[in-house]
Amino acid sequence: MADSSSELDRTVERLREFAAARSWERFHTPKNLATALVVEAAELAEIFQWLTPEESMDVMSSEASAFRVRDEIADVLAYLLQIADVCGVDPLVALNEKIDRNEIRFAKPS
Amino acid sequence: MADSSSELDRTVERLREFAAARSWERFHTPKNLATALVVEAAELAEIFQWLTPEESMDVMSSEASAFRVRDEIADVLAYLLQIADVCGVDPLVALNEKIDRNEIRFAKPS
Amino acid sequence: MADSSSELDRTVERLREFAAARSWERFHTPKNLATALVVEAAELAEIFQWLTPEESMDVMSSEASAFRVRDEIADVLAYLLQIADVCGVDPLVALNEKIDRNEIRFAKPS
Amino acid sequence: MADSSSELDRTVERLREFAAARSWERFHTPKNLATALVVEAAELAEIFQWLTPEESMDVMSSEASAFRVRDEIADVLAYLLQIADVCGVDPLVALNEKIDRNEIRFAKPS
Repeated sequence: MADSSSELDRTVERLREFAAARSWERFHTPKNLATALVVEAAELAEIFQWLTPEESMDVMSSEASAFRVRDEIADVLAYLLQIADVCGVDPLVALNEKIDRNEIRFAKPS
Repeated sequence: MADSSSELDRTVERLREFAAARSWERFHTPKNLATALVVEAAELAEIFQWLTPEESMDVMSSEASAFRVRDEIADVLAYLLQIADVCGVDPLVALNEKIDRNEIRFAKPS
Repeated sequence: MADSSSELDRTVERLREFAAARSWERFHTPKNLATALVVEAAELAEIFQWLTPEESMDVMSSEASAFRVRDEIADVLAYLLQIADVCGVDPLVALNEKIDRNEIRFAKPS
Repeated sequence: MADSSSELDRTVERLREFAAARSWERFHTPKNLATALVVEAAELAEIFQWLTPEESMDVMSSEASAFRVRDEIADVLAYLLQIADVCGVDPLVALNEKIDRNEIRFAKPS
């Protein structure tokens, strides 16, 4: 049932259809998608590169920079979901397993 | 109700608790999280840097490299969710709005 | 004597004067310069992100993409020289020492 | 005459011989070298990712972190010189031309 699929699954489906409709799948090797992911992550970092820590915490108070932040977060997520998709990885399962490992690796202070 | 929250929301909640339990929140400025995101994206790209396109498509057939791919996808998602969280951005909403814009910008071939 | 300084040293001097004349030195912490360096390196990688290996080898045959390559190489070098300068590192000395170490670490096939 | 070549040229020559002796040239497409360059730049940025601006300015006072900084600067320079070499770009000429353009684009405050 369509209803039972999560919003994340539906978004992955939109990305697939978007690429297929434009015959972009041939570009979407894991290697190319990983590079595109770094490029978009760097565009997000660029917003903050000359800001002080305090200024960076205030970035969403300007409409223009808030738009850029949302736009670059969207681009990073797009390529992350696409590389996960072509590699057959469920990113939320992978992250929850990583948090499980990190809870052992970085013990809470007692 | 806990049941109504999505797996994505629950994962964001785990990341918040993980950072809070270790008093790491002071490090989590948007600026620092954006840099950490690029660093992790680059670690994912590193897996593929010397591979041919064909070899990159086969990366999940080796258990060792499949583990690395899952692990780095998890790390990228962790920092992406955390920067979105501190900036008050819903990453799935941002991405769906971006796909809406891209459907206009990159018209399908007819 | 001016004549004895190398072209590299003179370029570092130009970068110093350029930043000083615009009072940009306060932005040039090692942390900020390292982020700017990644951002520029990603802009160089972006040129190649959807190209096949063969197409990437042909990138200089188009005047427009050749200009972009030269421009991004210049930007990466600018930030690399500036972070080296604020950290008191001679980049050519550091690289030659690294090659020395790598000649031991990666033995030539005999 | 060997004496007339600059230290930069001699270093490029060492990098060429190093790659040739290991038959690594086939990996050194502009595309792969650009990705490797981003990866190394991100490793440099990683050193600073959780530091305050002030802590980042003090990074060379610890022998261990000073070594990492020199080592990553060396790696970035190695890939930058190699991508410039395979693309036939003189990086110092490219940078000086860029500074010329920037002196017009960003006028000094008067």
